[in-house]
Amino acid sequence: MATIQEVAKKAGVSVATVSRVLNKHTVVNAKTRAKVEKVIKELNYEPSMLGRNLRNSESKLLLVVIPSIANPFYTEIVDGIQETAISNGYHILLCETNSNPEREATYFGMIKNRMADGVICMDPAVNKQKLFELAEKYPIVQCSDYDKGSNIPYVTIDSELAAYHAVRHLIKIGHKRIAMINTDERILYARERRAGYERALKEFGIPLDEELIFHTMDIDFNDGQQAMRSLLEVKDVPTAAFAVSDVLAIGALKEINNNGLKVPNDIALIGFDKLSFSNMTYPALTTVAQPMFKMGSLAAAMLIQKIQGKKVENIVLEHELVLREST
Amino acid sequence: MATIQEVAKKAGVSVATVSRVLNKHTVVNAKTRAKVEKVIKELNYEPSMLGRNLRNSESKLLLVVIPSIANPFYTEIVDGIQETAISNGYHILLCETNSNPEREATYFGMIKNRMADGVICMDPAVNKQKLFELAEKYPIVQCSDYDKGSNIPYVTIDSELAAYHAVRHLIKIGHKRIAMINTDERILYARERRAGYERALKEFGIPLDEELIFHTMDIDFNDGQQAMRSLLEVKDVPTAAFAVSDVLAIGALKEINNNGLKVPNDIALIGFDKLSFSNMTYPALTTVAQPMFKMGSLAAAMLIQKIQGKKVENIVLEHELVLREST
Repeated sequence: MATIQEVAKKAGVSVATVSRVLNKHTVVNAKTRAKVEKVIKELNYEPSMLGRNLRNSESKLLLVVIPSIANPFYTEIVDGIQETAISNGYHILLCETNSNPEREATYFGMIKNRMADGVICMDPAVNKQKLFELAEKYPIVQCSDYDKGSNIPYVTIDSELAAYHAVRHLIKIGHKRIAMINTDERILYARERRAGYERALKEFGIPLDEELIFHTMDIDFNDGQQAMRSLLEVKDVPTAAFAVSDVLAIGALKEINNNGLKVPNDIALIGFDKLSFSNMTYPALTTVAQPMFKMGSLAAAMLIQKIQGKKVENIVLEHELVLREST
Repeated sequence: MATIQEVAKKAGVSVATVSRVLNKHTVVNAKTRAKVEKVIKELNYEPSMLGRNLRNSESKLLLVVIPSIANPFYTEIVDGIQETAISNGYHILLCETNSNPEREATYFGMIKNRMADGVICMDPAVNKQKLFELAEKYPIVQCSDYDKGSNIPYVTIDSELAAYHAVRHLIKIGHKRIAMINTDERILYARERRAGYERALKEFGIPLDEELIFHTMDIDFNDGQQAMRSLLEVKDVPTAAFAVSDVLAIGALKEINNNGLKVPNDIALIGFDKLSFSNMTYPALTTVAQPMFKMGSLAAAMLIQKIQGKKVENIVLEHELVLREST
């Protein structure tokens, strides 16, 4: 890769001038700026944020971008990130986007201003184009959410396979009318889990019934309740349901109970995530365990390696179907 | 209050030398340092962190110190803090202590190093002496947890009164054998809620039975389960229980269900906090609502005012007894 010295030499200016152009100082005149920018482009020069002077710029802060801190799914991951970050001398700055582009822009700006050394992004609704651009210059890792074909390293699970295992379990214990409580399929994991659901049905010769697939608006308890309310109105009521998160499953369970029906006898139920309170419901929820703490911990380790300029590999963690009382 | 100029004049040195002493520069010789430090003490001079040069030192970051991010009680408060912080141009740095003194020391160090502008402390197990010392020089606010007689401003609820209301409700619907699932009484809110429990019993002429008060080791679901397991072994089993948090109450509910008993018919149950999950249990939990989002939002507003050098007043928010199905 080209160095700042080569850029300066080819543009016929000093290294300081190149630096001023890079930092968008106003003292550089337009003609010089244009010349330097042309050379930067020609040589494909990228200022190295990783190799920069540690004393001046390393903040020892990592940004952790999540859609909502109220979602318990993220808290365990954040716990894992925190643990690894701290044991490596870093602290985390938790950034809640509420999927608001302005907030995202603020956080991304903090990285550009070197207020933090890197980003762990967990917001599936983040502006992906902006994220990819940022990742070209700054250390970024994706956790749980990821993008196929992007160059951002990630740690995640195999959502398609996990959903397949969950639905196959329901089929094996005798269910044929299996509902799916899914979120917005613009989100990758929702598409992947849908694919796993369909694969299991297909493998056992069960026809796909679109009436049994409910897409929630959001991912709160009441979205799960609403989904089940709607599914209970289907003519040929499902005997089982697979929800793509424990929160949705717990909402669905509440609605089933409210209707005087019993889980698992009337309707069997499987969630996803193995949140701590999925074991506190009555009956306790069968669920797909994601190793959330480990996922966070690995994401932090990965990001720190990237900050240190090391190469990192994507990681796909194992999931586990945890059989409890709801199936 | 004395100014840096007065210190310099009285010590017979330059303002720059006083500044070097304050910043612990090594270039000041021991004799001069001793002289300056003596004058600083005599004049009771305190370097104003609030009035310092904004361009150089304002980080626009607020530290939020919590014992555990996995505790859903804090997530809603943090949400409120975040909302107000962002709308005022601040970001928050979420600091999880796990009640570990080393981590606390790290976070407090960040304030001293001006990496953040202020602290919202919510850890009841934090080293109070260190916190009080820090609060003499830096903007600190307590939220939920607080210390009577300290000079740290706080926003909280009246825990004694809230517990009194909860227990009085149990008495009014006919209960006399009322258990209390409490945490460690070294924590202020645990003592306050105990006092409210006792006041209600006393008012209705119900004798206090120490056998009915269980102190948990921690505040997870399984601590609530363990508490109920123990209370169910009491000779004259309680007909009702008041838990000082929803998480403990939900654990207790699980244990009651596991024993084939029914809530509220066999045992009535009241929690505390009104976590979103407390409405998803079966039956839904009667609980004392704390305005958590508002509490966080006010704490952030209070801290920002303090950073701006304004005077702030303590705030005690209203609680509300939310009657659901468990009583």
